[in-house]
Amino acid sequence: MKRDVSVELDIAISGPTTLEFQIAVARQSGPELNESLVFELDGRTIVPQEILGPHGTRIHKFAAGTGGLQVRYSASVFGAAVPEPVSGYDLAVYLRPSRFAESDKLLGFAATEFPSGATHANSAAAVSAWVGRRLRYVAGSSDPIDGAVDTLLSGAGVCRDFTHLQVALLRALKVPARLVSVYAPGLFPMDFHAIAEAYVDGVWRAFDATGLAPRSSLVRIATGRDASDVAFLDNHGGEVYVNNMRVGAVVDGHLPLDNGADPVSLW
Amino acid sequence: MKRDVSVELDIAISGPTTLEFQIAVARQSGPELNESLVFELDGRTIVPQEILGPHGTRIHKFAAGTGGLQVRYSASVFGAAVPEPVSGYDLAVYLRPSRFAESDKLLGFAATEFPSGATHANSAAAVSAWVGRRLRYVAGSSDPIDGAVDTLLSGAGVCRDFTHLQVALLRALKVPARLVSVYAPGLFPMDFHAIAEAYVDGVWRAFDATGLAPRSSLVRIATGRDASDVAFLDNHGGEVYVNNMRVGAVVDGHLPLDNGADPVSLW
Amino acid sequence: MKRDVSVELDIAISGPTTLEFQIAVARQSGPELNESLVFELDGRTIVPQEILGPHGTRIHKFAAGTGGLQVRYSASVFGAAVPEPVSGYDLAVYLRPSRFAESDKLLGFAATEFPSGATHANSAAAVSAWVGRRLRYVAGSSDPIDGAVDTLLSGAGVCRDFTHLQVALLRALKVPARLVSVYAPGLFPMDFHAIAEAYVDGVWRAFDATGLAPRSSLVRIATGRDASDVAFLDNHGGEVYVNNMRVGAVVDGHLPLDNGADPVSLW
Amino acid sequence: MKRDVSVELDIAISGPTTLEFQIAVARQSGPELNESLVFELDGRTIVPQEILGPHGTRIHKFAAGTGGLQVRYSASVFGAAVPEPVSGYDLAVYLRPSRFAESDKLLGFAATEFPSGATHANSAAAVSAWVGRRLRYVAGSSDPIDGAVDTLLSGAGVCRDFTHLQVALLRALKVPARLVSVYAPGLFPMDFHAIAEAYVDGVWRAFDATGLAPRSSLVRIATGRDASDVAFLDNHGGEVYVNNMRVGAVVDGHLPLDNGADPVSLW
Repeated sequence: MKRDVSVELDIAISGPTTLEFQIAVARQSGPELNESLVFELDGRTIVPQEILGPHGTRIHKFAAGTGGLQVRYSASVFGAAVPEPVSGYDLAVYLRPSRFAESDKLLGFAATEFPSGATHANSAAAVSAWVGRRLRYVAGSSDPIDGAVDTLLSGAGVCRDFTHLQVALLRALKVPARLVSVYAPGLFPMDFHAIAEAYVDGVWRAFDATGLAPRSSLVRIATGRDASDVAFLDNHGGEVYVNNMRVGAVVDGHLPLDNGADPVSLW
Repeated sequence: MKRDVSVELDIAISGPTTLEFQIAVARQSGPELNESLVFELDGRTIVPQEILGPHGTRIHKFAAGTGGLQVRYSASVFGAAVPEPVSGYDLAVYLRPSRFAESDKLLGFAATEFPSGATHANSAAAVSAWVGRRLRYVAGSSDPIDGAVDTLLSGAGVCRDFTHLQVALLRALKVPARLVSVYAPGLFPMDFHAIAEAYVDGVWRAFDATGLAPRSSLVRIATGRDASDVAFLDNHGGEVYVNNMRVGAVVDGHLPLDNGADPVSLW
Repeated sequence: MKRDVSVELDIAISGPTTLEFQIAVARQSGPELNESLVFELDGRTIVPQEILGPHGTRIHKFAAGTGGLQVRYSASVFGAAVPEPVSGYDLAVYLRPSRFAESDKLLGFAATEFPSGATHANSAAAVSAWVGRRLRYVAGSSDPIDGAVDTLLSGAGVCRDFTHLQVALLRALKVPARLVSVYAPGLFPMDFHAIAEAYVDGVWRAFDATGLAPRSSLVRIATGRDASDVAFLDNHGGEVYVNNMRVGAVVDGHLPLDNGADPVSLW
Repeated sequence: MKRDVSVELDIAISGPTTLEFQIAVARQSGPELNESLVFELDGRTIVPQEILGPHGTRIHKFAAGTGGLQVRYSASVFGAAVPEPVSGYDLAVYLRPSRFAESDKLLGFAATEFPSGATHANSAAAVSAWVGRRLRYVAGSSDPIDGAVDTLLSGAGVCRDFTHLQVALLRALKVPARLVSVYAPGLFPMDFHAIAEAYVDGVWRAFDATGLAPRSSLVRIATGRDASDVAFLDNHGGEVYVNNMRVGAVVDGHLPLDNGADPVSLW
């Protein structure tokens, strides 16, 4: 399978800052990746530092002064990724509570809402179905500081909120879980997307309680504990304004079907 | 029916302060009330100001310096209270979110957990049963700053927490609801108790998701939005330590039965 | 002094509901009040129930079906209000934590930020100055569920947020404090406004950390623990949309000056 | 310098579980480490899996059934650690908000409390002094789910709370910061301890707002985003009870002095 993804960003920078982007497809063994990444500030090219994080996550970082920043990324992904070996450390980390997946606050709720002693597979399916049933997808309904607890209470959110609630409930049920930002062919309206990965039967499986895009054609960008690890843009200085963002993601051929229930891994 | 209630408190006061007690049986029309209330600081009698609040709630207030405070209250209640007329203002106030019953935060959760369009009676029964099923009664499991949201998440609490969660969910479902502190014959271990009142079919009905004492022999003390309105002791100065508290509450004759489902009003 | 105030609202009602408005000038002894209040649903006049709350607060309540609701209120206030006697119950209630003024959560912070043992007057002045200095006024920066704690953290808000933080800090310092919704001649852009009242030297004094309008020409609407008690519109049913709102408030003659420091009471 | 550290734990396990311990001194290049680590369940030795995390952090993990678990760890550390190279990824991660150091919620507060444009060194010193001045050290004053925001409000905590508030404020000021669990010679009462590391002038410097032990003889155990990464015991199953814990930490010779202000790195 060939997948083509892209993003274009127009960003106004109001003062000197350091920026970190996580928009490039993850570095994984297996697929051939042809890509182009260009940063231009007021027409001058900027060469970022590339920082490699866990699970192939790539950060592109640079300092920038006031001005207009153009970001253009495009990539073609040929073939499938070989699953990364699962480390003992991963399994420890992805059981821990995190900023936006406060599983420690949800221990009591999860214990009464979901059956105890279920297999990881059954818990993951039950949590994904429950989150999909309990939350309404409402654009603009959540704040950047909202976590899984806020989402549980409000009953509404966007993809990151659906995912945080899944991840937090899974960890409360002792299933390692993490968040992945992805390019999502078929998503409408097209945007960056976020889904959950749960550790089931020895592998990481993809769960998307929003059901907004088929899982088998998703393209991994960044992988981490929650949204704090996968922000497409982290700004550490003067204020910045994303004036325009256009995301693209298509598969070569027909979009795959997804019944939402079969086990699927990102690849 | 005759009910006898009492409380004795030993309190150490570490610095000058003003204290407010809400331990006296509510002033209601109907029952005959024989009572005795004594405050002694290091052996000297203090005569408090009595402040009458809504629903017969009585506050006993006085300034006190450092020392050892003895509080002794006892009352015999003969006969039943005539229900207070329900004012339009009461119905407005008891739909509002309050400090420990943050119904505005629970609108989304309540809307998906409970059926819409139910009668007040059915909503009140459903909420009470749900809270009783979802929470564990665990002494010491909650903090004074915890509200209904914290209780929903932790899945555990004491009587005030059970009541806050009921009250908050009821208001989110548009059923006026409030908290009542009571003397509770039959409660074990004996202590002050708190229950919910919901406005059902034109009257205030008592709901106790803990099921720890029969509702029909409860004796009303203070009535309000939540625990912030009914604290048995509010301290506004130097620190105070309640070194000993002994609560008593008995009915003359057999303790009534309570199946938990029949409509019961406090009287 | 003569003050003229008004509000016009266009509201779309999506389903059967009960509405409560708090837009009419408070009923107080002293001033002459000439007013007109009209509710029309799709052209038919609705006669609301008027519910009188504490401190002259008036609620106008009615049931309404789907349709377009027009609200038109105007009032002329001649002369000054005689201060309401301060009850012992008021002083108890306005020291308690409330939904959006969670003073119990701020006890530790207030105790280290502000000097202990100050007079009420000095505490009130210090808190008002501190809140004015620490918060930025940013339209749209807060959510309806945000309280004083959220405002303290974010460092930004609108008038209700400034007021909640003042009220919460004052209560934490043992100064009775409450929130008042007002018509505010001179406010720009014109809107409903909210300020704090603190109990200082035996009277309620007005404090406005936003400094956006002179205090001495404010016109009291609703008075309560926090925004939960003074919402200009409470909706208990189908969703409603305020499509248009126009508030007016003028004084006859010159707008008074306000140095922000002199003691001022609403009248 | 030679440092001797130890911990003994008696733990009752109420049902089958998987446990993770982080009690062993971090694996670092430089010092010679002689150590002994023994786990015995009802007298039978358990051999744990050792998982190596970032910064030399070691997790000892094993499954265990019901019974009494004895843990005995002791280590002698000879000489100093060579500082680990600081990676670009570390600097990215330790600027992010985390579960108990919610820097994103404190951006507004930090921006008004601390001067902007300060050097990392000055910010770190200012934050450490401020936290030390504003918080009271009160054993038992905080809950396991409390984070930096809760600590800011309550004004009290233990070492983990002091550290969380420091770390969160530093990140809000754009200074990379993390938490380290340590053995702390001189600490009284002796226990595990936690301090902050801030990235200052190209190296990680130790800051301890509690001032309870000299920084230059601390022995690093686990390093991470906050307490979620360094818990001495993570339990993933039946409930466990730590019935007894005895921590030891001494230096060979005199305990070093610490004026609290000089730059110190853990070694």
